[in-house]
Amino acid sequence: MKSLLASWESLCATSGALRFIDVNLRGVGQVMFQDNPLSGALFLAAIAWGSIAAGVPQVLFGGLLAVVAATLTAQWLRVEPASLRAGLYGFNGVLVGLALATFVAPGPLLWAYVVVGAAVSVVAMEATANLTKAWSLPALTFPFVLVTWLLLLATYGFAGLSGAALPSAGVVAPFQSMAATRLDAGLFVQATLLSISQVFLKGSAIAALLFLAGLAVNSVAAAIAAVAGAILAVITAHALGAESDLITGGLLGFSPVLTAVALGTVFNRPGLRVAAYAALGTAFTVVAQAAFNVALTPLAIPALTAPFVLVTWMFLLPRLALDKR
Amino acid sequence: MKSLLASWESLCATSGALRFIDVNLRGVGQVMFQDNPLSGALFLAAIAWGSIAAGVPQVLFGGLLAVVAATLTAQWLRVEPASLRAGLYGFNGVLVGLALATFVAPGPLLWAYVVVGAAVSVVAMEATANLTKAWSLPALTFPFVLVTWLLLLATYGFAGLSGAALPSAGVVAPFQSMAATRLDAGLFVQATLLSISQVFLKGSAIAALLFLAGLAVNSVAAAIAAVAGAILAVITAHALGAESDLITGGLLGFSPVLTAVALGTVFNRPGLRVAAYAALGTAFTVVAQAAFNVALTPLAIPALTAPFVLVTWMFLLPRLALDKR
Amino acid sequence: MKSLLASWESLCATSGALRFIDVNLRGVGQVMFQDNPLSGALFLAAIAWGSIAAGVPQVLFGGLLAVVAATLTAQWLRVEPASLRAGLYGFNGVLVGLALATFVAPGPLLWAYVVVGAAVSVVAMEATANLTKAWSLPALTFPFVLVTWLLLLATYGFAGLSGAALPSAGVVAPFQSMAATRLDAGLFVQATLLSISQVFLKGSAIAALLFLAGLAVNSVAAAIAAVAGAILAVITAHALGAESDLITGGLLGFSPVLTAVALGTVFNRPGLRVAAYAALGTAFTVVAQAAFNVALTPLAIPALTAPFVLVTWMFLLPRLALDKR
Repeated sequence: MKSLLASWESLCATSGALRFIDVNLRGVGQVMFQDNPLSGALFLAAIAWGSIAAGVPQVLFGGLLAVVAATLTAQWLRVEPASLRAGLYGFNGVLVGLALATFVAPGPLLWAYVVVGAAVSVVAMEATANLTKAWSLPALTFPFVLVTWLLLLATYGFAGLSGAALPSAGVVAPFQSMAATRLDAGLFVQATLLSISQVFLKGSAIAALLFLAGLAVNSVAAAIAAVAGAILAVITAHALGAESDLITGGLLGFSPVLTAVALGTVFNRPGLRVAAYAALGTAFTVVAQAAFNVALTPLAIPALTAPFVLVTWMFLLPRLALDKR
Repeated sequence: MKSLLASWESLCATSGALRFIDVNLRGVGQVMFQDNPLSGALFLAAIAWGSIAAGVPQVLFGGLLAVVAATLTAQWLRVEPASLRAGLYGFNGVLVGLALATFVAPGPLLWAYVVVGAAVSVVAMEATANLTKAWSLPALTFPFVLVTWLLLLATYGFAGLSGAALPSAGVVAPFQSMAATRLDAGLFVQATLLSISQVFLKGSAIAALLFLAGLAVNSVAAAIAAVAGAILAVITAHALGAESDLITGGLLGFSPVLTAVALGTVFNRPGLRVAAYAALGTAFTVVAQAAFNVALTPLAIPALTAPFVLVTWMFLLPRLALDKR
Repeated sequence: MKSLLASWESLCATSGALRFIDVNLRGVGQVMFQDNPLSGALFLAAIAWGSIAAGVPQVLFGGLLAVVAATLTAQWLRVEPASLRAGLYGFNGVLVGLALATFVAPGPLLWAYVVVGAAVSVVAMEATANLTKAWSLPALTFPFVLVTWLLLLATYGFAGLSGAALPSAGVVAPFQSMAATRLDAGLFVQATLLSISQVFLKGSAIAALLFLAGLAVNSVAAAIAAVAGAILAVITAHALGAESDLITGGLLGFSPVLTAVALGTVFNRPGLRVAAYAALGTAFTVVAQAAFNVALTPLAIPALTAPFVLVTWMFLLPRLALDKR
C-alpha cells in the first residue's frame, strides 16, 4: 500500500492535473479525517455505488462538481498550500454538493447553487478555522452544516429551487411508539452499516463496506472506531426507544460514528480512558441527534452533522490529559 | 458561624467521605454562587421541602443523584482540584437532575438519563470554562442549559422517556390579556418569593426563605440582591403587562434574580453605579425571559436560566470601570 | 465640503451642545459606516421623509429618541471617548428605535421600551466589540439585531406592547410561485432603490436617493458599492425566483447592500479581486436573507440585518490577502 501511494505521489509531483485529482481525492477522504487519496477514491466509489443503486446518479455528480468547485475556489483565494494539498478545503464542499443534490430537485439552477455553495464553503472553512484556532479546535464539518442549512432553508423562499426531498414542517409532539418492532440480528447489522454510510448521506450496506475499506487503508483504528461507534449508537438509540425506521436507516447513527472516530482516534491517542470518554461522547451524540431532529421539525430541514460538531467540540474543548496514567 | 465552618473544614480534612459530602454541598451552593457547605445544606433543605410538599420527592432524588454523579465524573476526569473542591463542577449537575426529574416522568431510564446528563454537564462545564476564559467570563449555568435543552428535546424522539410535565408546542401569537388580575400585596409577596425559589425550579415560599437563609449565611449582600432583583423583576413584568400566572408563579423572575446577584454582588463591587447597572440588566432579563419563552413555544421546552446567562454575559463583557468614581 | 466640515468641527469644539449633536449625527451615519455628521444629517432627512411620507412620523421620533438615549448611556458608562465621538455607540441605538417604532404600536410603554432598548444596545455594542476584538472583527449591527429580536419576541408575552406590524407566525412550506410577475425596467429601478432605503427600514425611492447622497458626500466608492450591491441582489433574487413583492419592496436587498459596502469598500481596499469576493458575499447574502426569513417564520419576527452580519463576518474572518497581486 505504502509503495503504491509513494508511486502515486511521485506521479502527482510531475503533473498538475494529477495533483489536482490528488487534492480532490484527499478532500473526499477528509470527510472522515483521512488525508489519503486512496481513502478518497474508495469513498468516491461508495458514493457512486450508493447513488447509482438508489437511482439518483445526480447525487454523485453534485458531489464531484462541488469538490472541484471548492478546490478551484481555494486556489483562487490562495489559501495555505499545505492545508489545501491535504484536502482540508474539499471535504465541506463535497458534503454540500451531496446534500443539495440529495434534497433539491435537479436542474440548471441546482448546479449553479451547488457551485456557489461549494465556493462559500471554502470561505466558511477558512472563517471557522480562524475562529476556532484560539482553542486549537478543528473546524470539523461546521462549514458544511452552516452553508447547507442556509441554502436548504432558502429553497423555501425561491420558486427556482424545489426542496423535493426535504422533510415537511411538523409540530413537536410526544413520541408515538411504533408497533413493537424487534431489532433482530439482521436489522441490527443493517442499522450499524447504514449508520456508517449515512455519513455521506447514503443508505447502502455495500457503500458502508467500501467506506470502511477506505478508512482501513489509512487507519485500521479509525475503521474499528467507526464500527464500534455505530454499534454503540444503535444500542443507545434502541435502549431509549427511538423510532425503528430512523435506527435501521442509520439516521441516528452517522453523527455518533463521526464522534467516535474523532474522539477515539483522530484527536486523542487511543487507550482505555480515551475509549470510555469517546463512548460517553458517542452515546450523547445520539441524544443530540434526536434533539436536533426535534428542534428542526418546525423548520423542515435535516440536522446534517450538526450533532457531531457540537458534541465533538464540547468533548475536545476540555483539553483533558486522558492518555496520561 | 465561622468557627462552625472551621470545625467542619478540619473534619473534612481528615475524612475522604466528609470531604466528598462537602464538595457536593458546595456544588449545590454554587447554583447561587456560594462556595459554602452550609449554604448548600440550606439550599438542599429548600429543595427537599419544595419537592416533598409538592408531592414530587423524585425531584429531590434526581438532584442528589445528579450532583453525586457530576462530582464523581469530575474526579474521574481529573479536573483542577481547587475548582472541584469549590463545587464548581457540581452546580450544573444538580440543576440537570432537578430539571430532568421535574419535566420527565420517573422510571429507570430517567435515572440513567440523569446520570449521563450530569456526567456530560461536567464536560460541558470544562468546555465552557475554556471557551470563555479568554474574556475572563464565568461559565454561569450555560452548561446546565445546553445539556438540559438537548436532553429534553430528545425526549420527543424517544419512546422510553416521557416529558410529561413539558409544555405543549404552541404557535407564537399576540398576547391574550387576562381578565384584569390585580397584583395585590399578598400576590406581590408571593411573586417575589417564588421568583427566588424558582431558581431551583421550586414554587414554594418556605423554600424561598430557606434559599435566602442559605444566601445570607455566606453573603448578606447576595441575599439583599436576590430580594431586590425579585422585586424589580415583578414590578417590570407587571408594568409591561405580563401574564399574571407567570408573574405570581415566579416564572418571569428567577433569571432576573440570578442576574441581580451576579451583576450586583458577585462580579462587581457593590456601589451606586453598579446597582444602577445591575438594575438595567435585571430589568432587561425580564424582557429576555419573555423573549425566550416565546421563542421556545414551537419547541415545547422551557427557557431554564438561558436569559440569565445571555444577559449576564452581555453585561459582564464590557469590562466597565463601574466602581471607580 | 471639506471646509464646511472643518468649520463645523471647530464650532463643535467650542460647544458641548453642538458636540452632542455632532456625535448623534455621526451615530446615524455609522449605520452605513460613515463617520461624518453630514452623512448623518442626510440619512436623518431620508428617515424623516420616509416616515412622514408613509404616515408614520412616530418612527422618526423613535429613531431620534433612541440615538440620544444611546449616546447618553454611552457617556454615563464612560466608554472610550474616540469611539464615542465617532458615533460608534449610536448606530445600533438608532436602528433599535426605528425598528421598535416600525413594528410596535405607539404609546408611553413603547417609548420606555425604546429608551431601555437603546441603553442596552450600548452595553451590547461594548460586549460585542470586546468579544470580536480577538479576531479584529467589527461589531457591525449585531447588537441591534440581538437586542431588537429579544424586545420584539417579548412583545408576544406582554399585554402592554402590541407588535401590530409584526408578521404573523406561519408554517414553513414550499414556495408558492406567484402568477408570472415580470420585473420590467421600472420595477427593477424601484427594487434597487428600495433595497437601499430598507437599510433604515424605509420603502421610499426619494429616501433612497437621500441615503445615496449621504454616502457620496463621505465616500463615492461606498455609494457605488451600495448601488452595485442592490442591483446584484435584485438580479440574484430574481434569478432564483423569489417572490416579487419581497424583491420590489427591497426586502431581499438591504442586507446585501450592507454586505457590498462593507466587503467592497470599508474593510477591504477596492480592486478587482476584492470586487469578485464582495460579489460572492453579496449574492450569498440574498440566500442568507431568504433563509432567515424562512427560519423566523414560526417565530413571527423579521430577520433585520442578521444575514448581513453573519455573511460579512464569515467573509471577513478568513483575512485573505485579496488586494495583493
